[in-house]
Order: sequence, then C-alpha cells, then structure tokens
Amino acid sequence: MKIYDWHIGVNPRRLRIFLAEKGIEVEYVEVGQKDRRLAPWYIEKYPHALVPMLELDDGACIGEVRAIAGYVEELHPDPPLLGRNARERAIVAMWEQRAYEEGLLAAAELFRNAHPAFIDRGLPGSADPIPQIPALCERARGRLGRFLRKFDAQLAENEFVAGPRWTLADATTLCAVDFAQRSDVTIPPECRNLARWHETVSARPSATA
Amino acid sequence: MKIYDWHIGVNPRRLRIFLAEKGIEVEYVEVGQKDRRLAPWYIEKYPHALVPMLELDDGACIGEVRAIAGYVEELHPDPPLLGRNARERAIVAMWEQRAYEEGLLAAAELFRNAHPAFIDRGLPGSADPIPQIPALCERARGRLGRFLRKFDAQLAENEFVAGPRWTLADATTLCAVDFAQRSDVTIPPECRNLARWHETVSARPSATA
Repeated sequence: MKIYDWHIGVNPRRLRIFLAEKGIEVEYVEVGQKDRRLAPWYIEKYPHALVPMLELDDGACIGEVRAIAGYVEELHPDPPLLGRNARERAIVAMWEQRAYEEGLLAAAELFRNAHPAFIDRGLPGSADPIPQIPALCERARGRLGRFLRKFDAQLAENEFVAGPRWTLADATTLCAVDFAQRSDVTIPPECRNLARWHETVSARPSATA
Repeated sequence: MKIYDWHIGVNPRRLRIFLAEKGIEVEYVEVGQKDRRLAPWYIEKYPHALVPMLELDDGACIGEVRAIAGYVEELHPDPPLLGRNARERAIVAMWEQRAYEEGLLAAAELFRNAHPAFIDRGLPGSADPIPQIPALCERARGRLGRFLRKFDAQLAENEFVAGPRWTLADATTLCAVDFAQRSDVTIPPECRNLARWHETVSARPSATA
C-alpha cells in the first residue's frame, strides 16, 4: 500500500494516525519540497494537488482521508476504527464530519489567512495568487471557539469523540485541535473534558505517526 | 425512517435526491419556519442545528448527508449508490468530497456572504451576528469557476461524476451547480460535458425530490 504523504500537512497526519491505530505497514512517499510546495511531478500525477493520496496497484489514485480510511477498513476490518455496525458507523461519520468542518477547516482558514507564507500564494500548480482576507481570521477564531466548546460538551459524556472507542473522529479532532494551536488558539481552561481527552489521545503512540 | 427536512435547504435536497434514487419511502418532517429560520424545538432536539437529520427508532439523531446515506445504503443495498465494491466506494467518496468542498461549500460561501438575508444573521439558535465578508464573494466565485471546469474535465471521460453509474457524488454535484446558479454563477459555455451531464441528471425524477 503506497501513500503519497507530506510530513508537515494536517490531512496527511490525520491519515497516518488512522493507519498507525490500524497497525498496518504502509510505504510513504514524501511529495513536499524544501520550498514548502508540492513536487511538480506529484501535481501532474494527481491534479487535485492534495495530500494524502493512496495509489492502488492498478494505478487508481484515491484522495481524501475518509475515502482512503474507508478503503483500508474494508480490506483490514480489525480493529474497527469507523464503527462496528451501521448505527455506529453513522455516528462516527457524523462526528468526524463535524470535527473536519467545524475544527479542521476553521483552523485551516485561520492559518491560511494569517500566516505570512500565504500572502501571495495561489493553489498548488497555479500562478494566480489567492489573497488573504484578514476579516476571515477573526471569524475563524470564533468558529474554533465554538468547535472547542461543542466537543468539550460531547466529551463530557463520552470517553472518545464518537463514543466509548477510538475512531477516525478522534484523529480528525486531534489534528484540528493541534492545528488551531499553531495559530495560538488553545483549549480554553474551562474545557476540562476536552483537555482530558487531548491528553489521553496525544499519549497514544499513533499521535506521533 | 424519519428525516427532519427543510424544503429550501441544499443539504436536505442532496439527501432527498439520494433517497429518491434509492426508491425507499421516508417520512419527512419540515423543520423550517416561514421566517426562514429553524424551529426552536428542532434546535433543542438537535443542537448541531443542521439539516437534514435522521432519527432512529432508539432516538439517536444522525446528521450529515454522508452519514445518513451510508446508513441507508447498509440497510438497503440495492441499488448501490455509493459504489459496488471497496475500490468504487473509495472513488465515489473522493469525488463526493470534492463536489462538497469545492462546489457546495463554495456556493454556500458566496450565498452566505452576498445574500441580504444574512447581513446581520448569526448561527441558528444564537443571538451573535456573523458579519458578511464581501471579499469572500469574489474568492468564492473563483472557487466555483475552478470547480465547474474541473468537473467538466472529469465528465469528459465519465458519464457520471464518479464513473459509469449514478452515485451520491452526482447528487452533491447537482446541488452544488444549482446552488451556485442562485448566485448567478452558471455553467460556462465551454463546459459542454458538464452541461450534458447537468441536463441528464436534472431530467431524472429524483432531481425534483
């Protein structure tokens, strides 16, 4: 199984954590360059220009963490990390999507519109710059605050994000929380359930994958 | 099966189209009010305050179209609308995610930041307004232009978005294209493959579900 990876990326980490919890051996191919851009050969190979990406033996390129995780789960069902039955899978998918949209996309919005590296940067493979919008940073901080409080409430009643077991929803939430921290948005002191959970999942070996 | 629905919403339509293609009977409960806000009782019942939502017999509330669609597909596998095997399911999930993020979220960004109804509007159930950011409209138009051209290229080589069969990726793409049109972003004349596809999928009975 060959995964195209970028060691500094958030979505690549999200998948590496999942695969580490799954306990399977994977060949990782680094596609980020020293100038913090994707290698041109990779953009040509996979024009979506996103990481991570799974290349199948027949040459098919599968992007998107959820798509790759679902494929891996079908081939290697144990341990189940997307839920053990239809009901659990639906609950995991719901919380994973909330973590992605309210947490990870909000953290990306803040980082993308605040970090100096993106001032005159366009999409990978494109020369057209996409300007930063400072007003988006403030909005993203609000989104992240709501995300952290919502997940704190969920973790008051659940050991993990989607119930009593570790799932992909925990990988996505962990990546979102840690990504927000790179823009100085940290877990508020009153969010004790989230802090307890963060300590627990960060101590698992998968967190450093 | 009881679905909480808002007839004017884009994600509710995305699910209704999927369920119509699946051919199963569903009880829909309208949760939108005449003032174009969610009913307070619904926000209390489902604090994510999002539609659509599937309520299971045991009272569990499942939100997110993909989560609901996955659940329905497990209970009613025929016709398969998320792919027929692990490889197809991965490809459908990838394209569905791209349609959602590059198409539907971009169209929502444009609509949310341009439409007068959202000038002083906050999140459902919240009194805090989230101001519009006019610069986002221009950026969203750029995103939508790239989305339409990318999917046109994909549809040059595929009858449907994720291959030779109709899948959830087509529902999401159709909802994104039609939602963009509400902000006057239409299919460019040179995108003939996308136009051909749009005519085909719009003619299916599910499109008016």
